Amino acid sequence: MSSVTRKRQLGRPVSIVGAGMSQFGAFRDLTSRDLFAAAVQDLTAHMDQGIDVADIQCAYVGNYSSDLFEGQGHTGPILADWLGMTPTPITRIENACASSGSALREGIMAIASGLYDVALVGGVEKMTSLPTEGVTDVLASAADGLYEVPAGLTFPGIYAALAKAHMDRYETSLTHLLKVGIKNHQNGALNPKAQFNQSLRDIMVRRQARAKERGEVVPAWQDELDFLNDAQANPWIAWPLRLYDCAPITDGASCVLLVASELAGSFTDKPVHIAGTGQASGRPLHDAEELTSLSAAKAAAAQAYQMAGVTAQDIQVAEVHDCFTIAEIIATEDLGFFAPGEGPRAVDEGRTARTGDKPINTSGGLKAKGHPVGASGVAQVIEVFHQLRGEAGPRQLSNPNLELGLTHNVGGTGGTCVVHVLRRG
Amino acid sequence: MSSVTRKRQLGRPVSIVGAGMSQFGAFRDLTSRDLFAAAVQDLTAHMDQGIDVADIQCAYVGNYSSDLFEGQGHTGPILADWLGMTPTPITRIENACASSGSALREGIMAIASGLYDVALVGGVEKMTSLPTEGVTDVLASAADGLYEVPAGLTFPGIYAALAKAHMDRYETSLTHLLKVGIKNHQNGALNPKAQFNQSLRDIMVRRQARAKERGEVVPAWQDELDFLNDAQANPWIAWPLRLYDCAPITDGASCVLLVASELAGSFTDKPVHIAGTGQASGRPLHDAEELTSLSAAKAAAAQAYQMAGVTAQDIQVAEVHDCFTIAEIIATEDLGFFAPGEGPRAVDEGRTARTGDKPINTSGGLKAKGHPVGASGVAQVIEVFHQLRGEAGPRQLSNPNLELGLTHNVGGTGGTCVVHVLRRG
Repeated sequence: MSSVTRKRQLGRPVSIVGAGMSQFGAFRDLTSRDLFAAAVQDLTAHMDQGIDVADIQCAYVGNYSSDLFEGQGHTGPILADWLGMTPTPITRIENACASSGSALREGIMAIASGLYDVALVGGVEKMTSLPTEGVTDVLASAADGLYEVPAGLTFPGIYAALAKAHMDRYETSLTHLLKVGIKNHQNGALNPKAQFNQSLRDIMVRRQARAKERGEVVPAWQDELDFLNDAQANPWIAWPLRLYDCAPITDGASCVLLVASELAGSFTDKPVHIAGTGQASGRPLHDAEELTSLSAAKAAAAQAYQMAGVTAQDIQVAEVHDCFTIAEIIATEDLGFFAPGEGPRAVDEGRTARTGDKPINTSGGLKAKGHPVGASGVAQVIEVFHQLRGEAGPRQLSNPNLELGLTHNVGGTGGTCVVHVLRRG
Repeated sequence: MSSVTRKRQLGRPVSIVGAGMSQFGAFRDLTSRDLFAAAVQDLTAHMDQGIDVADIQCAYVGNYSSDLFEGQGHTGPILADWLGMTPTPITRIENACASSGSALREGIMAIASGLYDVALVGGVEKMTSLPTEGVTDVLASAADGLYEVPAGLTFPGIYAALAKAHMDRYETSLTHLLKVGIKNHQNGALNPKAQFNQSLRDIMVRRQARAKERGEVVPAWQDELDFLNDAQANPWIAWPLRLYDCAPITDGASCVLLVASELAGSFTDKPVHIAGTGQASGRPLHDAEELTSLSAAKAAAAQAYQMAGVTAQDIQVAEVHDCFTIAEIIATEDLGFFAPGEGPRAVDEGRTARTGDKPINTSGGLKAKGHPVGASGVAQVIEVFHQLRGEAGPRQLSNPNLELGLTHNVGGTGGTCVVHVLRRG
């Protein structure tokens, strides 16, 4: 009866039939209510057969800390009231940056349990209400408040430690990290909802043009790597991580509509089925078994693969939790896409690009799409949903046989990891 | 497909087979980790057939705001690590003071979904880390941060408004409110885990004795009502609510072990089954339909009764959310135990006492047992579990045919309400 190895199946299958996202970005005048309402409006506007919010039977919202960001607790019913959804039951799910990944699982189980047929699952975070150093402190409280925070650790430092460990153990270089950011910005440039919908080359060229306009010395960057290696353009945050190795601070919301699969046909001709779901907890960093891998990610992936009856090799597109560039590399190894230590080479070889055999973060990832922490898990699911339905616009993968996608959502340093395998209907 | 009226059933039945609680009280040196570990240790120590934490397949923890109370987010995996439960998935559920009522539902659905067979569901709140005014502010953030908090509302004021509305509409008196407190303290006096395990008569007599010892004028209180009507002994907090109308600030934790009913026999000979579960959201107070009733409570109760196939008349024991004395009166009306406006008379007639026909809050309720907000929902379930199993010690109800109990857990002013009907196995 071990919690890791037991084979698990849902009592009845569950499908995703709709998705919606707010614009991701920095919106000082908007609240969580505005953002979540924008996501739900985006969903309802794009339902193939329409939907009335009164038909939604239960709701979950992933949110890390409306308490600390906005001074608002009990966020669930506040959002339900704002959307005119009262008396629909709504529950806030908190697992740090994996909050909406966990919320998705709760929505899946709510339907699989037989209690509900139609569930709204989303996430929201309003972060720019605080100055940057305040946001850093709020995020740091997802680390261990007894053993890590008092030592001065914040998340850039924590992930810098993982990066250094990976560099020491394998042949991982600073350039490997930078290449993850370059790729994700290239993808984000094709995503109109992304906070940074610009490639790093665009950003570089624009900066050079601006310098020229102002009569300043024009930086002699030849390419993105040149640009990113310039300590003025891309300052160190916590060695070996620079500014462009870090996901930004983002306001945003996301949501999907889940239904019992037997009902999916009345909502859409193109459902996306939940093939596998996995979640595991991991120890805090100070107590972790190793620094080059997140044990919870491996456990969650094993559960999701087993339920779906697939292996890592079968996954054709994945959104992974690149809160920092090193996190994407570690994720691709933990998920079994590449052997331990082989993640950096896969980046070098372009295997994780949109044109590669294992496209990762086609949305731009947290790095370029943005990382409104409580919303990111479901936002990942939305990208895979669109890719599997062939509606990802200019960033649509060219593979006409896309069938299996994966999402990988991490809270803290792997205190929580949630993995979903999605299958085209 | 209305979210209120559709008949709902669990895909497979779920039972409670164990329960544990920390001492409730003010423990300045303890953290949430210590409190939750104490609850889990109490559970494991009292399992009829024993339990290894490694056999727990998933966990939920209701917690209102470890963020604001302790500066700790991502509380789930922190607790799992502390208990040696990693990599068991654990998720924090937040619905203000209904957090662990909602957590219980998630645990029930996790098992009913087929994903898990054994789930730990608990709640914890460490509140005395802040001074009283800080706690009041944290609790106030469960109200509407745009429309209520800026107006200066805190929860004693909010519930005072409900009390005033009830007094205006019905023949509810200050004495009715005080009698709820007297009853609940009488019950709490029989509960060794209660924060106030003293009757108000005991408190009164002790104060008189202390005055005598000190050579002070001995207050001439004849009975509890005399004592409670003394504005020095029982000061006004927010008219018509006095100090002893308010639940205290409490540190504490609670947990129960849920299993698929088909497995209950391997854990205990005396399981308690989940007969019905209901949850609904309600509008914030400023937007509420009326002030003498919580619409979410009525909706949640209707769902739970329907699933259980019972009516309010069938319920033999109930724990209701008496965060303030008026809240208990309103709860007993919303649940259909008494007609609207008849709650006060039922108190007068002793119907809600342990010796009455509708015993309410035999544990002492939030009022006397204490109200560690995230832990209260599951603590209510624990009391009903013990009553149905005949193991409530000196407060055990004398009815030898106890079979059906109910819990009623409220977040905010009914933004969330969760109702469970429990049946003796």
